[in-house]
Amino acid sequence: MDLSLADDFLARLRPSVAWADDHIEIIDQTKLPTELDVLELRSVAEVVDVIFRLAVRGAPAIGCCGALGMVVGLDERRPADAASAVAVLDELVDTIGNARPTAVNLSWAVKRVRDAASAGADVAAVRELALNEAKLIIDEDRDACTRMGLYGRDELAGINKIMTHCNTGRLATAGWGTALGVIYAKAASGEPVQVLSSETRPLLQGARLTTWELHDAGIDVTLMPDGSSSTAMAQGKVEAVIVGADRIAANGDTANKIGTFTHAVNAKYAGIPFYVAAPLSTFDVSIATGAEIEIELRPAYEMTKWRSEPTAPQDIPVWNPAFDVTPAELITAIITEVGVLEPPFEQSIRAAFASGGEA
Amino acid sequence: MDLSLADDFLARLRPSVAWADDHIEIIDQTKLPTELDVLELRSVAEVVDVIFRLAVRGAPAIGCCGALGMVVGLDERRPADAASAVAVLDELVDTIGNARPTAVNLSWAVKRVRDAASAGADVAAVRELALNEAKLIIDEDRDACTRMGLYGRDELAGINKIMTHCNTGRLATAGWGTALGVIYAKAASGEPVQVLSSETRPLLQGARLTTWELHDAGIDVTLMPDGSSSTAMAQGKVEAVIVGADRIAANGDTANKIGTFTHAVNAKYAGIPFYVAAPLSTFDVSIATGAEIEIELRPAYEMTKWRSEPTAPQDIPVWNPAFDVTPAELITAIITEVGVLEPPFEQSIRAAFASGGEA
Repeated sequence: MDLSLADDFLARLRPSVAWADDHIEIIDQTKLPTELDVLELRSVAEVVDVIFRLAVRGAPAIGCCGALGMVVGLDERRPADAASAVAVLDELVDTIGNARPTAVNLSWAVKRVRDAASAGADVAAVRELALNEAKLIIDEDRDACTRMGLYGRDELAGINKIMTHCNTGRLATAGWGTALGVIYAKAASGEPVQVLSSETRPLLQGARLTTWELHDAGIDVTLMPDGSSSTAMAQGKVEAVIVGADRIAANGDTANKIGTFTHAVNAKYAGIPFYVAAPLSTFDVSIATGAEIEIELRPAYEMTKWRSEPTAPQDIPVWNPAFDVTPAELITAIITEVGVLEPPFEQSIRAAFASGGEA
Repeated sequence: MDLSLADDFLARLRPSVAWADDHIEIIDQTKLPTELDVLELRSVAEVVDVIFRLAVRGAPAIGCCGALGMVVGLDERRPADAASAVAVLDELVDTIGNARPTAVNLSWAVKRVRDAASAGADVAAVRELALNEAKLIIDEDRDACTRMGLYGRDELAGINKIMTHCNTGRLATAGWGTALGVIYAKAASGEPVQVLSSETRPLLQGARLTTWELHDAGIDVTLMPDGSSSTAMAQGKVEAVIVGADRIAANGDTANKIGTFTHAVNAKYAGIPFYVAAPLSTFDVSIATGAEIEIELRPAYEMTKWRSEPTAPQDIPVWNPAFDVTPAELITAIITEVGVLEPPFEQSIRAAFASGGEA
């Protein structure tokens, strides 16, 4: 598999998180879509702050930012010897790793950097090992995205009109994303692609981020309300739906941003294929079905106000589930970095983990 | 059918449009849900203004406001004799009737007042006939709502958890509404009722108006995102969906606010009944199916900004259909003021018009 297609395509676009000689650069996602503001992070406090207030978001992108934050921390603290450097890294695993306690990628990434760097014989070696490991985490994420994109491109050959939900692209990962990676791969291969992005209420990741990043990359994207999926499908505006995932059970049931399940039901009714794109790290084969996935309920204010402007009575009861669980029976296939998994998913998921993934 | 239940229930609630001795009072719907502001209208200019800027909205409510506006116009102009009074009414048919050219109820209501009042022998008689006709229009709309509510209450006997979409209640009509009328009728009858109101992007009629008016009437209402219908249904939070309609074809295909069709597909998947509540005046039996209904596309700014706050890139292409068409096969029954119409709808709609409605 030739991964250079993604490198060439991404070379002209600003990554969400990057290392620049002696500091981290991130796109401030809280300013999007109205401003493209790049923040330079030179202290641990800044790294923790941008992660905490969602200036960087998307589990893989958060992990990459945290990993690079370990190097920023070493440079800021200037330890005198290798033992002090490792002690600093131990501290940073907590300080940075707890910036968002629920983001699994974050604590996993900072621990991986600490473990890799601990073998350094002197401060310079510790720093070099830490930076190399952080860059490796970024490269691995980027490559997984590229592979998903290329497998998805081939799976969706001949399909040009694609609906997506939430944000699963450059802003959420170190590469071109998961579901959006498939769209980028088609575009990078010169295939025509027209994207319908649903708004993704209440936080509008589709409206604010997906439209911004696809438009910025020169890809044809149109914004639509979440509730219009059936009409878009009935009018022939959609040939396939592709979404990312937050957690996939052993049977293929898929937790993802609220609204995904509704799009999947509508795709089934319209006879349109519905794809999930996610790396093997998103699978939780310890749970048999989606019934074991607890749905996080988010605060009411996300739905009763948009920034400074009220959208509903301020005291009204609100049901604001962050995720939903799409039953495996509605999913046409799951696109991973080791290939496209087809139903029955119990078998194809088990086979993917046996052949190349981690259990 | 005893219509007093609605009168008793509505007596303690402020109507969206009402006559008060010598002026019109309306709830300013542009201020909801943050402020309950009642406007007193004493000039034709004010009547036209509130209709034009959607301070009063909902086709029946607009018709009632326009009809009463004819009396306001007579009082403002003080014609010297009956002929001058009729000439004033002729002018007002245009001035008020064109405040929103697409609202059929508006031009129908002002013409009906003009025609009824033209027989008056002197100015006082013209005014009395005009006021009586305007009040009759209001009473007829109120009674149609009451009948729909009572038929719907009986049809949904034993069903307590109801999902609805957009706003179809007190604010949109002279009575307790169409789909919300069924909910009010259940509540007025002492039945337990829990309502899930979807936001209704992009203009948020569900979030702003339905939650406000149900909460104001003491009815249990919870706000949810449009995209969460499948999850709400899968979790047992919904026993039936009920919506209003903008236009119903001879075969039962139903045009209504964007998002309706998607809820209907999700209800079908979940095995939950899906009801439409609408008066016979909403049926257009001149069209065979919903394929003949043109879908109005609304401006992009409705989706790229919420009041002063951007929600998306300002220059992004937007697909913003105002309505969708729910296929008759997804509709369990249509609740009207002459009874509940069951499938096959070609037959039941034809029978309803033959027995009591207008063709």
